[in-house]
Amino acid sequence: MKLARFVYDSDVRWGVVEGEDIFSLIGSVYGEFEKGDFLCKVSEVKLLAPAEPRITVACGLNYREHVKELKMEFSEEPTIFFKPVNTINVHEGEVIYPSVSSDLRYEAELCCVMKKETKNVSPDEALDYVLGYTCGNDLTLMDLQLKDGNLTRSKGFDTSGPLGQFLVTGLDPQALRIRSWVNGELKQDGNTKEMIFKVPEIISLISTCITLYPGDVVWTGTPSGGACPVKVGDVIEIEIEGIGLLRNSIKQG
Amino acid sequence: MKLARFVYDSDVRWGVVEGEDIFSLIGSVYGEFEKGDFLCKVSEVKLLAPAEPRITVACGLNYREHVKELKMEFSEEPTIFFKPVNTINVHEGEVIYPSVSSDLRYEAELCCVMKKETKNVSPDEALDYVLGYTCGNDLTLMDLQLKDGNLTRSKGFDTSGPLGQFLVTGLDPQALRIRSWVNGELKQDGNTKEMIFKVPEIISLISTCITLYPGDVVWTGTPSGGACPVKVGDVIEIEIEGIGLLRNSIKQG
Repeated sequence: MKLARFVYDSDVRWGVVEGEDIFSLIGSVYGEFEKGDFLCKVSEVKLLAPAEPRITVACGLNYREHVKELKMEFSEEPTIFFKPVNTINVHEGEVIYPSVSSDLRYEAELCCVMKKETKNVSPDEALDYVLGYTCGNDLTLMDLQLKDGNLTRSKGFDTSGPLGQFLVTGLDPQALRIRSWVNGELKQDGNTKEMIFKVPEIISLISTCITLYPGDVVWTGTPSGGACPVKVGDVIEIEIEGIGLLRNSIKQG
Repeated sequence: MKLARFVYDSDVRWGVVEGEDIFSLIGSVYGEFEKGDFLCKVSEVKLLAPAEPRITVACGLNYREHVKELKMEFSEEPTIFFKPVNTINVHEGEVIYPSVSSDLRYEAELCCVMKKETKNVSPDEALDYVLGYTCGNDLTLMDLQLKDGNLTRSKGFDTSGPLGQFLVTGLDPQALRIRSWVNGELKQDGNTKEMIFKVPEIISLISTCITLYPGDVVWTGTPSGGACPVKVGDVIEIEIEGIGLLRNSIKQG
């Protein structure tokens, strides 16, 4: 089922998407729900990030060719970091390029939105805690990453985590083509089957120390091809098979 | 002025503290406010963290002797990391020691709670954006820090960031004695004047990329002496001059 979160009549709502139509969602998106009556067209609403995170945890260095292009070392367990809530951004939202950086890069990622409180879960049961999947763009200030020696400003700057357009339930997260384009030119073309650490392993590792709650988000790393800079005015599109497209442009901060 | 945040008659409230008494706070804690009528005794309420963070940013390696005891290198700018909202803990709250670690350490820290939206502020103006100061304990899983090569689980685990008891306005943040005890034995005895990067520099650096909002928290690093392990059942107390005491115990996760 394809879900959207949006503003309708000044209210924030979840809905069920079929083609260009949005139907009301009856019940709780984190519990039992079903499709209700026709509400409106997708084009008539402002889409929000299809998630309501208190916490967002991301996995880096999770595709072999990406690790090689960054000349980084492979790790034995998922390498995780936080993208705090100031990073939340939406489909068609502008990414604010901080004036303290001059090397902004994009990273197409599969993102999981959690359905249940998730603490100390094994990989075998981890997917039962996932509500669905969406597209994410893990924008990165590579010059600050190297200068700071950590990811805090690099991947934690305001607007650096667009999510959307839709959240899709019932997908196999390890069998999805994932691509990105800059100004219409194909840059990344991978498949989530290439992940070094699969989604259940990432969630399980996080949950050893960090409780995830309904609406929290887990990012799963990016394929190769994202390691080139973008500039103010560029348009980045990310598409994941079965989910759809996420589009954002870059604005000077 | 000394402020507290607490549960009273099932409501979460801010109040003004004088001695053992709490008075109602009239106005907005993030705007204009004054002391109202007597409400209750401090001992009659459950104290909460005196902050309401969406985001918490911490500065590491900020006291010279602490950097030396960790055998780390000095950096040219503040080294910052996130403690997400799952770390929030309260005075007398239990710290849950994750079963995946066997090296838990404490770190006494001065914490700032923000008053205004803070973006791209200079060091000269940064303190105008601070509401007040409280005690924090930056609990750390040193074995996971070394194993993971990052601070995500080490300093981001649930309950790892007790704050309290009180928030005090109008202090000079660079002239406060800061101490910690484990089971009554003095472990850290420093002064915030020893910080390598002063509070305004830390806030200014964060604000280059990350907007802080009213209620967000900035941690400022710990003096030497915290780098020894604690165990289940231990009681850690932190006291900062002019603010008061923060006490927490350790419980097996």
